[in-house]
Amino acid sequence: MTASPSPTLARHDLIARFTEIVGPTGILTDAADTAPFCTDWRDLYHGRALAVLRPADTEALSRIVRLCAEHDVPMVPQGGNTSMVGGATPDGTGREVVICLSRMNRIRNIDPHDLTMEVEAGVTLKAAQEAAWEAGFMLPLSISSEGSAQIGGVLATNAGGNNTLRYGNARELVLGLEAVMPDGGVFHGLRRLRKDNTGYALRQLLVGSEGTLGFITTAIMQLSPQPREIVAALCAVEDADAALKLLGLLRGRDPALVQAFEFMSGTGMDLVTSLIPATSLPLEERAPAYVLVELATPRPDAELREYAEGVLGDALEAGIITDAVIAESEGQRAGLWKLREEHAEAQRRAGASVKNDVSVPVSHVPELIKRATAACTALIPGIRPAPFGHMGDGNIHFNLVQPEGMAPEAFLARSHDIMDTVAAIVKELDGSFSAEHGVGQLKPYMMPAWRGGAELAAMRHIKAALDPRNLMNPGKVLPPATQDA
Amino acid sequence: MTASPSPTLARHDLIARFTEIVGPTGILTDAADTAPFCTDWRDLYHGRALAVLRPADTEALSRIVRLCAEHDVPMVPQGGNTSMVGGATPDGTGREVVICLSRMNRIRNIDPHDLTMEVEAGVTLKAAQEAAWEAGFMLPLSISSEGSAQIGGVLATNAGGNNTLRYGNARELVLGLEAVMPDGGVFHGLRRLRKDNTGYALRQLLVGSEGTLGFITTAIMQLSPQPREIVAALCAVEDADAALKLLGLLRGRDPALVQAFEFMSGTGMDLVTSLIPATSLPLEERAPAYVLVELATPRPDAELREYAEGVLGDALEAGIITDAVIAESEGQRAGLWKLREEHAEAQRRAGASVKNDVSVPVSHVPELIKRATAACTALIPGIRPAPFGHMGDGNIHFNLVQPEGMAPEAFLARSHDIMDTVAAIVKELDGSFSAEHGVGQLKPYMMPAWRGGAELAAMRHIKAALDPRNLMNPGKVLPPATQDA
Repeated sequence: MTASPSPTLARHDLIARFTEIVGPTGILTDAADTAPFCTDWRDLYHGRALAVLRPADTEALSRIVRLCAEHDVPMVPQGGNTSMVGGATPDGTGREVVICLSRMNRIRNIDPHDLTMEVEAGVTLKAAQEAAWEAGFMLPLSISSEGSAQIGGVLATNAGGNNTLRYGNARELVLGLEAVMPDGGVFHGLRRLRKDNTGYALRQLLVGSEGTLGFITTAIMQLSPQPREIVAALCAVEDADAALKLLGLLRGRDPALVQAFEFMSGTGMDLVTSLIPATSLPLEERAPAYVLVELATPRPDAELREYAEGVLGDALEAGIITDAVIAESEGQRAGLWKLREEHAEAQRRAGASVKNDVSVPVSHVPELIKRATAACTALIPGIRPAPFGHMGDGNIHFNLVQPEGMAPEAFLARSHDIMDTVAAIVKELDGSFSAEHGVGQLKPYMMPAWRGGAELAAMRHIKAALDPRNLMNPGKVLPPATQDA
Repeated sequence: MTASPSPTLARHDLIARFTEIVGPTGILTDAADTAPFCTDWRDLYHGRALAVLRPADTEALSRIVRLCAEHDVPMVPQGGNTSMVGGATPDGTGREVVICLSRMNRIRNIDPHDLTMEVEAGVTLKAAQEAAWEAGFMLPLSISSEGSAQIGGVLATNAGGNNTLRYGNARELVLGLEAVMPDGGVFHGLRRLRKDNTGYALRQLLVGSEGTLGFITTAIMQLSPQPREIVAALCAVEDADAALKLLGLLRGRDPALVQAFEFMSGTGMDLVTSLIPATSLPLEERAPAYVLVELATPRPDAELREYAEGVLGDALEAGIITDAVIAESEGQRAGLWKLREEHAEAQRRAGASVKNDVSVPVSHVPELIKRATAACTALIPGIRPAPFGHMGDGNIHFNLVQPEGMAPEAFLARSHDIMDTVAAIVKELDGSFSAEHGVGQLKPYMMPAWRGGAELAAMRHIKAALDPRNLMNPGKVLPPATQDA
C-alpha cells in the first residue's frame, strides 16, 4: 500500500497510535484485509483506506477521533456497508480511515415501562428487532437490508421502510443518543424522555446526517407492543387515483391500523408473476395496478378481519377497488408480500432498469405516476415503467425497465436522461430526489438545485461549525462549495 | 424613550427604514404602545424595545432581518406572549426590536389526502385547531394557552401538552417549515413529505430553538382524523407505582387508544374539591392518588366504552386500581377534566406554591414522586406536595403548596431550596429541568450543569454558525460562555 502519509505524523506512527488504542485485533491495514471495507455492496465505488479501525467502546472511539482531529485524518464511519449511495465508502486517496463500530454490539437494556431499548451502534437492525420481539415488544422499523444494516448506520441515514406511514422514520423512533462529535467530545444524550425542551435538537440533527457530523455510538429506541392481529389484503385498482381514495378511506376510519400501504403497477406485477417462480396473481383478473394493504393492532378482540372485510367491501361498492383478496393464513400473507418484495428481482431479470427513489406529497402520487410514465414513454418508446413502493408515505420507487429486445447497454446509456426526466417532474411536485437512501457520494451534486439557497447555506454553516476541518465523512451529503449557485 | 442608537445608524433613521418596510401601521415606537410587548404575561420580566415591528409577510420580515443584521440590531420574536420562561421578552437596553408575526395569520390550505394544514406563524393554536376541525380533521396539539399562543411560538418552543403520549410534541407534528434565517435568507422548506433524506434536519433544529436561530414564518402541520369515540375515566390508585401499572396495562393492549394519562395526587385533588366551586370527587372514597385516563379512536364501531369497562375491570380485579368511574356524557367528561385543569388554580387559592415543570423516564415517575415528596417534606415540614400532570409521557408538574398557616413570603423565600431539592432528584433520575416550557431567559443558567460538555458546546457552535452576531433573541436558551464549566 502506498497511502500518502498524514501531514503531521508518518503513516507508521499513526498506525502505531491507533493500534495502541484499539489493540491489534481492532485494526486492519493490509490492502487485502481493508478491501471489503473500501467498496460498497453494489460495487459502484472503490476507495482505499489508511486503516480500518474497530474500537471496542465509546472511550476508544473518542480517543481515535481526537487523534484523527489532531493529525487531520479524515474518517469514514461504516456500519453494515449497505448504503445505496456510497455513503460509507472511502475515497481513493488512501488518507482516510474507515471506522466500524461492529464490536459495539450489545443490547444493553429493554424497559417495559418506558417501551424503550438501549442498543449500541454495531447491533444489526434484525438482531435489535429480534431482541425486542423476544422481550414482548416490537421495534417498528424494517428495511430490506436489516440483516446486515447496523443501528449506527440505520440512524445515521434516517432509514425508512415499509412502516413509516404508521411508525415514522428512524428519526421519530429515537428517544436518546450517545455520539462522538468531530472533535472527539462525547455527547451524552442517552435520555429516555418524551418531553425535554432544554436546547437544540442535536439528536434529530445527528440522525440523518450520514456520518458527516459525528459518530452515533448508542441509541435509545422507542418500542411498540406487538400486534395481536394482522390482516393483509391485495386490492386491484384502476389507477393510482383509486389507490389514493382507498388510502383516504382507510386512514379516515383509523390511521393507527394501517401498517403498510404498498402500490404496485400492473406492469411490475406481470414481471413478478412471469419471472419469479412460485408466484401467481391471487385475483381472477389482471388489473392496471394493485395495492398491498396491511392492517395491524395490538388490541385484543379487535375483530380486524371483519373490519377489513367491511372497509374493503365498502371500497368495492364505491368503485374504488375492483377486486380484493384477504390473506387467510400467515402463509398467504407471506405470499402477498412476496409479490411486493420480488419486484426488484423481477425487474433485474427483465433486463436493464433505472431506479428512482423519490417521494412527493401523498396527494401527488397519482400525478407523479401519470406524468412520469408519459414522459419516459415519450423519451424511450417501449420503456416499461414499473413504479411501486410506499404510497402511504409518498415514497415511490419509480423504476423503469428497458423495452423488450433493446440492448441493455443502449438502455443504460440513457440512464441520466431517464433520471433527469423523472426528477424534473418530482421537483415540480415539491418532492424529494432521495426519499429513503440519502445523499452519500452519489447525489451531493443535486443539492444546490433542490436544497439550495438559505437551506444549503445553513447546512454548510452547521457542518463547518461542528467539523471545521471537514474530517467527518468528507465528500458526502454536501457538494463542494464551488457547485453552489 | 432614550434607547441607545444603533451602532451604525441613528435611531430615527432606523425607525424610518423599518417604517418603509412594514408601513406605518406595522410599527410601534411609543413607550406606551410597546409596553405590553416588553413584559411577559406572568409579569416577571420587564424590558424595553427600540420598536415593535409587525411585518405583513415573509418578504417584509426578510428585509427587516437583513436591516437588523446590517446594523447590529438584536431581534426578539414574539407570538402570543405566553412564555413561561420569559422567552419572548426583550432585555432592558432598549436596543432590541420585538418582531411579531401576528399579521401573518392565514390558514393557507388543508389537504385531505396529505392530512396536512399549511398555516402562518401568527395564527393562534386555537384558530388552527378549529379550522382543522371544521375541515373534518384534528390538529392533535393542545396546551392551556392555546387561545393566545400562536403557531410560530408554539413551534419555536416545541409545545407539548396533554396529548404528547399519543401524538408527540409539536416537533413531531411539523412536516414542513418556512423560516427567515438570522441573515435574512429564507429557508423554503414548506414540503409535505413523509420521507425526505436530503441533508440535515433543519426543520427539527428550528423547532424548539426558541427564536434563537431564526423566525418560523409558516408551517405544514400534520393532522389526524377526528375521534369518533372518546371515553374518559377517573381511576383511584394507591400510589404512582399502581398508576404506572395501569399505564402498562393500557398501552400493552393498544397504545393508539390512549390519548391522555394524567396523574393527580390525593392532596391536589383535595385542594380542588375544597377550593373550587362546583367540583366534587365522583368516587365514593378519597384515594391517595388518581389517574384521569382518556381513550379515543376514529374507528367507527370500536365499542370503546365496552373496551374501557373491560380493561378497567381487569385493573380492578388485579388490584391495580381501587375504584373507577367512566364518564357517561360529554358533561361528565368535562367534569372529570375540570378536576384536572383546576389544579393550578386550586393551588393558587391554597397559598403560595412553587412549580417545577420536570420530566423523567416514565418508569421513574413513581420514584420521583416518592423521593421528591420525602425530600421536600424534610426540608419544610408541613409542605404540601401536589404533583400532577402528564404521567404518560413522564412530565410531572411537581408543585408544592406552602404549609397551612405559614406566611407566604416565608415559604417563597425557600423557593430556590425547594426547586434545587426537586431538581437534584430529577437529575439523578436522568430527567429534564424543563419538560415543556423551554429555557427562555429564566433557565439558561441551568444548561451547563444539565446539558454541558459536548452537548452545550455543539449548541454554541451551531448558534455561532447560524447567528454569528448573536442578534436572534440574545440571552435566551444559551448562557453566557463564562458560565461553562
